[in-house]
Amino acid sequence: MTTAVIQDTDQFLADFHDTWQFGATARNGVDRQAGTAEHGRIRDWFKQRAEEEGFEVRVDSIGNVFALLTFIPDADFVLTGSHLDSQPLGGRFDGCFGVIAAFHAAIELKRRVEAGEVIPQYNVAVVDWFNEEGARFAPSIMGSSVMCGFFDRDEMLAVKDLGGTTVREALESIGYLGEDEAPVPASYAEIHIEQGRLLERHAIAIGAVTQSWYTQKLNVKVLGEQSHTGATIMKDRHDALPAASLLVLKTEEVVEEFEEEQIVTSVGQFNVEPNSPIVVPREVNLVIDLRGHRREDVEKARQILVDYCEEVARARDITIEAVDFDIRDHQRYPDDGVVLTEKAAANTGVSCMRIETMAGHDSVPLNRKVPTVMIFVPSEGGVSHCEREFTADEDLVQGLIVHTDIVSRLITGDLDHLKA
Amino acid sequence: MTTAVIQDTDQFLADFHDTWQFGATARNGVDRQAGTAEHGRIRDWFKQRAEEEGFEVRVDSIGNVFALLTFIPDADFVLTGSHLDSQPLGGRFDGCFGVIAAFHAAIELKRRVEAGEVIPQYNVAVVDWFNEEGARFAPSIMGSSVMCGFFDRDEMLAVKDLGGTTVREALESIGYLGEDEAPVPASYAEIHIEQGRLLERHAIAIGAVTQSWYTQKLNVKVLGEQSHTGATIMKDRHDALPAASLLVLKTEEVVEEFEEEQIVTSVGQFNVEPNSPIVVPREVNLVIDLRGHRREDVEKARQILVDYCEEVARARDITIEAVDFDIRDHQRYPDDGVVLTEKAAANTGVSCMRIETMAGHDSVPLNRKVPTVMIFVPSEGGVSHCEREFTADEDLVQGLIVHTDIVSRLITGDLDHLKA
Repeated sequence: MTTAVIQDTDQFLADFHDTWQFGATARNGVDRQAGTAEHGRIRDWFKQRAEEEGFEVRVDSIGNVFALLTFIPDADFVLTGSHLDSQPLGGRFDGCFGVIAAFHAAIELKRRVEAGEVIPQYNVAVVDWFNEEGARFAPSIMGSSVMCGFFDRDEMLAVKDLGGTTVREALESIGYLGEDEAPVPASYAEIHIEQGRLLERHAIAIGAVTQSWYTQKLNVKVLGEQSHTGATIMKDRHDALPAASLLVLKTEEVVEEFEEEQIVTSVGQFNVEPNSPIVVPREVNLVIDLRGHRREDVEKARQILVDYCEEVARARDITIEAVDFDIRDHQRYPDDGVVLTEKAAANTGVSCMRIETMAGHDSVPLNRKVPTVMIFVPSEGGVSHCEREFTADEDLVQGLIVHTDIVSRLITGDLDHLKA
Repeated sequence: MTTAVIQDTDQFLADFHDTWQFGATARNGVDRQAGTAEHGRIRDWFKQRAEEEGFEVRVDSIGNVFALLTFIPDADFVLTGSHLDSQPLGGRFDGCFGVIAAFHAAIELKRRVEAGEVIPQYNVAVVDWFNEEGARFAPSIMGSSVMCGFFDRDEMLAVKDLGGTTVREALESIGYLGEDEAPVPASYAEIHIEQGRLLERHAIAIGAVTQSWYTQKLNVKVLGEQSHTGATIMKDRHDALPAASLLVLKTEEVVEEFEEEQIVTSVGQFNVEPNSPIVVPREVNLVIDLRGHRREDVEKARQILVDYCEEVARARDITIEAVDFDIRDHQRYPDDGVVLTEKAAANTGVSCMRIETMAGHDSVPLNRKVPTVMIFVPSEGGVSHCEREFTADEDLVQGLIVHTDIVSRLITGDLDHLKA
């Protein structure tokens, strides 16, 4: 049976394009980091739109925003959403598309429920998770991880940005440190841009996410000795910067040890002390990010890099400390959720393939608590976390339609057999 | 003729060691960057000590502090001094020793003049130049360069630190934006720690500085493309950081093209954008510092690096811009000043050798205006711009005695034949 689609996709596109104004940058991107004024403005806009459409808006004590549609008093909620915060000079699609698509999926479901086309067993809540990006406040995926009980709320509220502002202060400043109870989740569904190029390469509209990559980071501190650039001969130096530069290059080269596209490695954060043009650097702190399809590949890359730190430290008579952190094991999304996505795509006549996610998402902690479905739409050129991130309207709309079908299946209890 | 030395070196040492309290760090260094509260406190201390000793204190409109002894109304001044500001986590000797030694040389000369042992043709003024270090506010050697007319005063007052504070605001905040006329200089003498290890290696007490090294900087902007570390496959990236790391390593390696100890090269400032652990860097801005005994060596090193920037940009399909700045030609100090130092050392029974300065000093702009003498005392291990910078009391005192003899010869007109 194929459902005739009568969904109001024009209003969805109008709403989604409307969000581009919040934190708009000169080159078609957005800068809307967690807890900034621009982030506050898009949340105010979302709250107002949700109330116009008859949703009840709640804000919990870590700044997650929920827009609720209650069909059955006292029933649990199918949660669906993503995040409205962005990277500095990020794209307009990452996160924001998922919230607006979830919102319009819920609006359509309200219509279907009111028309008697769907008989719900659950209510639905659209969620804008706080601080998925983690650019201003580390760690990332903060709000969803607190709600799921994996991070401590008070510890997270005390996290500071580089300017010394805490999460608590930032949330208070935009009016989103709430006191409401979060709705009790029965299941979770998230739609997101792929941020890779597999769907584009295969000309497929929907990716049904099977599992997340194995990821870990290394916090590396390179300790040399500060001296005068203009008065210290080369062999008397213990310069932290060339040593750190060798680590950056080794991080890039290490992928050659593995099959193509099976691992990605990066150094994104890199701070030099004292960072004066005429002082030989005393210290560099950098973060190495390792992600792989296979856990053993990431562990092997980590070992090569840790050994290399020792080798560089010895050769240059300096100190290098490498500390593991933020280790995230593979998360398999339930097979029945993947099948449900395939059914939803087939039902709406849209192409679909199974895919893994290299990136982390709010669905990762949710997947450890409740039956969770995650789907992707294509990203042009695979680029993300930058201003030229792009997905065409047609792909967004196809995603919305499939996502609506998935949420519809969830509120009728299609994954209830997976519940603990 | 050897002058019997009856100078009060104990008071000199007491005063110098007293300055270590201002901005003292945990590891025997100081952090007293230009225009900070700690810098204000040491200046207040110096002003009070100078007034106690009968000096008249003036502050000019770029924050240079002058302590004047007027022997002959309307005569010009022999200036002598250095700077009380430091690098972040710098040493206790760099600059500060030169000001306190100049102060005690002047106190001793006052005694000699009052005792009729010296018949002065000039007055003497001890100077604490503003912002020699240039760590907080670039460029370095600011106050002396403005007084000599090489930098524009208003332009320098508008220079901002990374927090957005201007030089004007910083000087006002510590009470050292003055309105006094600077004394008219007849000549200049400066004593400083070597910040190298030649004197130590040769077991010589005094270095008579013959010339400064040729120096230049390159401002390099590496422009890649921002993307998601967790979702962008390696071959789709245009990561600015590994490209910049190659430039850091090439800057270090390029010295191998030259004779040993003839050139020093460094990258001291290095800023990554957006500097988030999960974002592939979009941009790196770095400063390459090149200094050499021979101009042609610096120019050759510069060309190798500029060519390498092009090579890296081409190989990685990114943009690299390298802009020359802060080019400082060799400055020869006058031969007769070097001979004068040799006489002063011989007169006081202290060993002396001719030496070049790799580092810049306030004496560099002064040397372009008036007859200038620059001398060094040993630095243990040659280390400087760091907390373990050290010179023994005995070496400081020998430097003071020779420096006093030099200033004494200057106020009796020994270099008058060099005046334009």
